[in-house]
Amino acid sequence: MGGQVGRRTWAIPEGFLPERLHGRGRELESHEAACLLNAGDADAHVKLTVFFADREPAGPYQVTVPARRTLHLRFDDLRDPEPIPRATDYASLVESDVPIVVQHTRLDARQADTALLSTIAFAGD
Amino acid sequence: MGGQVGRRTWAIPEGFLPERLHGRGRELESHEAACLLNAGDADAHVKLTVFFADREPAGPYQVTVPARRTLHLRFDDLRDPEPIPRATDYASLVESDVPIVVQHTRLDARQADTALLSTIAFAGD
Amino acid sequence: MGGQVGRRTWAIPEGFLPERLHGRGRELESHEAACLLNAGDADAHVKLTVFFADREPAGPYQVTVPARRTLHLRFDDLRDPEPIPRATDYASLVESDVPIVVQHTRLDARQADTALLSTIAFAGD
Amino acid sequence: MGGQVGRRTWAIPEGFLPERLHGRGRELESHEAACLLNAGDADAHVKLTVFFADREPAGPYQVTVPARRTLHLRFDDLRDPEPIPRATDYASLVESDVPIVVQHTRLDARQADTALLSTIAFAGD
Repeated sequence: MGGQVGRRTWAIPEGFLPERLHGRGRELESHEAACLLNAGDADAHVKLTVFFADREPAGPYQVTVPARRTLHLRFDDLRDPEPIPRATDYASLVESDVPIVVQHTRLDARQADTALLSTIAFAGD
Repeated sequence: MGGQVGRRTWAIPEGFLPERLHGRGRELESHEAACLLNAGDADAHVKLTVFFADREPAGPYQVTVPARRTLHLRFDDLRDPEPIPRATDYASLVESDVPIVVQHTRLDARQADTALLSTIAFAGD
Repeated sequence: MGGQVGRRTWAIPEGFLPERLHGRGRELESHEAACLLNAGDADAHVKLTVFFADREPAGPYQVTVPARRTLHLRFDDLRDPEPIPRATDYASLVESDVPIVVQHTRLDARQADTALLSTIAFAGD
Repeated sequence: MGGQVGRRTWAIPEGFLPERLHGRGRELESHEAACLLNAGDADAHVKLTVFFADREPAGPYQVTVPARRTLHLRFDDLRDPEPIPRATDYASLVESDVPIVVQHTRLDARQADTALLSTIAFAGD
């Protein structure tokens, strides 16, 4: 396995939680996720900061990704210190105390059929 | 928070504004966006240049992303010095005076259901 | 041609095999793939490790990508040492003895129309 | 503008031309494209090599991207030295004599509604 694969700082400029429109269960509801992989042997303590167009950032939101685990973190599950508003442009910054890898995914269920997007986040230094 | 996260030069080779076909409101209309994140403590002064297949580039288009803010810039909102034509291949180059992070997204509403694409742009040196 | 293009370690934090719902043939069935390109002149011996949210990793899964060949590896084809469960979050790490390039793609056929996502994986050192 | 933005070697491990199914005109037909941006002041002479699962590579295909221009190259337009077969896994390597930037996009029209994927290609050294 990969030991210390990844970086400590990651950025995701795109963020948008569509309104809830379809009652198809949690899995097919519109959502955005930051998929975090900690392939190393030490737990990752992760801070998430959320940026907006017209106000100061929200956060930090704090999560732990245990050693040799993945966490697919849904932005619409964030509650502490505050939920992320829907239908609002945002961006996010992920900071970890050990190297991790971050991928961003959105499932958009505003239409009859879903649409997907995904990209590896930007790895800062 | 992240201080100086990102790079000063970003490139997005893919660009295409589909024709307007659906009257579903601004949010679900076909569009492309460059999502800009300025996680630092200084405002970012950003120049956008648009390249085409068969003519000299357009621009520079100028926007400011304030400190600790995100701007989701829609290409179909650009007017000065000229709008970007629809149904035409283009590419774009984003240059900032401080480090930012750029992600490219397209929402395509030419069919009954929308399609999405997204990727972190290419970070130049 | 490109000789030694790529890296030896790649990470894909996003992984999810939707349930099988549509009987449209193998090509249009929901699946995720790791597309591996070996542009060099030596065979690539590749180990794949799969990470989960709440258990130790599975693997290694072993495949060979011959010199100057591509292998589009479907995660739902993995059997040895164990199949990947459906409807479960996972992530993956790809390690090769020679440089390769890895791209991640998902085709989601849970709705009447398919959705696609794709990104170049994260290139570790 | 950006002068020498980009790299000389790019890889796209994912490649697949779906069968032609819909007669909706060239723009909405299933296709894959390599979007090339040459933001510099010298023409880019580009060689494309196509890799398969079970035969030697095809190519080189040769194109020129003039200075300060973009070329959105459709893989289904390639003819010389040979067309790329449909319904076949492939990968591609893009080599240029000056720095360029490459983004990969697929539009999939096999269903009633289209699906899109896109990612910046892998930048080799």
